[in-house]
Amino acid sequence: MNRLLVERKVLGENDRIALELRKRFRAQGTLCLNLISAPGSGKTSLLESTLRDCRPQDRVAVLTGDIQTDNDASRLRRFGFPVKQITTGGTCHLDARMVERALADWPGHNLEILFIENVGNLVCPASYDLGEAAKIALLSVTEGDDKPLKYPSIFFRSSLMLITKLDLLPYVPFDLAEAEKNARRVHPGIEIRGISTVTGEGVREWRLWIEKQREPHRLAALASVL
Amino acid sequence: MNRLLVERKVLGENDRIALELRKRFRAQGTLCLNLISAPGSGKTSLLESTLRDCRPQDRVAVLTGDIQTDNDASRLRRFGFPVKQITTGGTCHLDARMVERALADWPGHNLEILFIENVGNLVCPASYDLGEAAKIALLSVTEGDDKPLKYPSIFFRSSLMLITKLDLLPYVPFDLAEAEKNARRVHPGIEIRGISTVTGEGVREWRLWIEKQREPHRLAALASVL
Repeated sequence: MNRLLVERKVLGENDRIALELRKRFRAQGTLCLNLISAPGSGKTSLLESTLRDCRPQDRVAVLTGDIQTDNDASRLRRFGFPVKQITTGGTCHLDARMVERALADWPGHNLEILFIENVGNLVCPASYDLGEAAKIALLSVTEGDDKPLKYPSIFFRSSLMLITKLDLLPYVPFDLAEAEKNARRVHPGIEIRGISTVTGEGVREWRLWIEKQREPHRLAALASVL
Repeated sequence: MNRLLVERKVLGENDRIALELRKRFRAQGTLCLNLISAPGSGKTSLLESTLRDCRPQDRVAVLTGDIQTDNDASRLRRFGFPVKQITTGGTCHLDARMVERALADWPGHNLEILFIENVGNLVCPASYDLGEAAKIALLSVTEGDDKPLKYPSIFFRSSLMLITKLDLLPYVPFDLAEAEKNARRVHPGIEIRGISTVTGEGVREWRLWIEKQREPHRLAALASVL
């Protein structure tokens, strides 16, 4: 069918640009993390908490995607690190071309970490490689422990499932063990952490997870200057 | 661009089928409601509550869309009304063709109400007319009061914004007045109700809203037999 062919062509073109981005990030020693979730799962709150804990000398930046508004970028700029908004104007996901364009006139070449906050959508962003080192799927406890089975593609492609809003656990019928079991049925190797940016639970484990991902990128950056 | 042309053709074809469906629903006196929200906003819980309150003689049915699994259909079948699952197999929304096919071998011709539970996605389902009398956008209080501005298309096209999980209001930073203001900035004529299927708050108002929508369909059904 014509539509499938066009989709395949679009994804092929996306993969080509994503490959270039990935090479560039590796050469620069930049860890790029692509945060994906439903609307309102806490991507922006997680980034607020993460930036708040960064030291001024950390070379950290955020690209944040939204269909409309730059609310998220405004929230994130308060911490003093570079934040750039990509407004997709109706498109339901970020693609590699949007990221490439956003980086073109931006001081992204010496970053240690680049966070990409995708459009709030648990379906479409899964299909678009952005050149990231890892996709992270956020799942809020208010959404239900069945979601990894219902939206398998994103959990299959993510390195980490981050269960958010742990502080709301007492008020919702969410079974942590069931959520883990469901995620591992879809993706046996997925790492799983929990976090609440309200109580601070899991914040340290989240930081440690990021640090662990940074190791190979640090070595690459070191090798490039030796 | 080729991709845009294909999208336009797909949407044109969808609108044609949706128009046929709408004519059929009107002629049969069937009120068709298309429920749209992010994953985990409470579409299935709302339908469980709604079916639980129906009388056995009510001619009510549900078409429920999911990318994978038939969990929702299993949950909804317990109430004894016809429930049919549409598994989209990766597609991020329902379209009119899927609804037409699902109805082809189904006793849908004498229904009073047909609920369509769309795929959990606040973006893509907004573009696909399913022949419904009204779209309903569910927004859970855990998702944040800014969402109507960030995902304007669905709130612009919905007749009703149903704010769900009111029982969680004490635990989350959600401002009801702000959510209403944001929804009305996008769509001044949108109706707004709140509901909690846990405490029962707003359930009566939700039933009354449905009854109000049924009036013209009841008259149409009556006219067709006179």
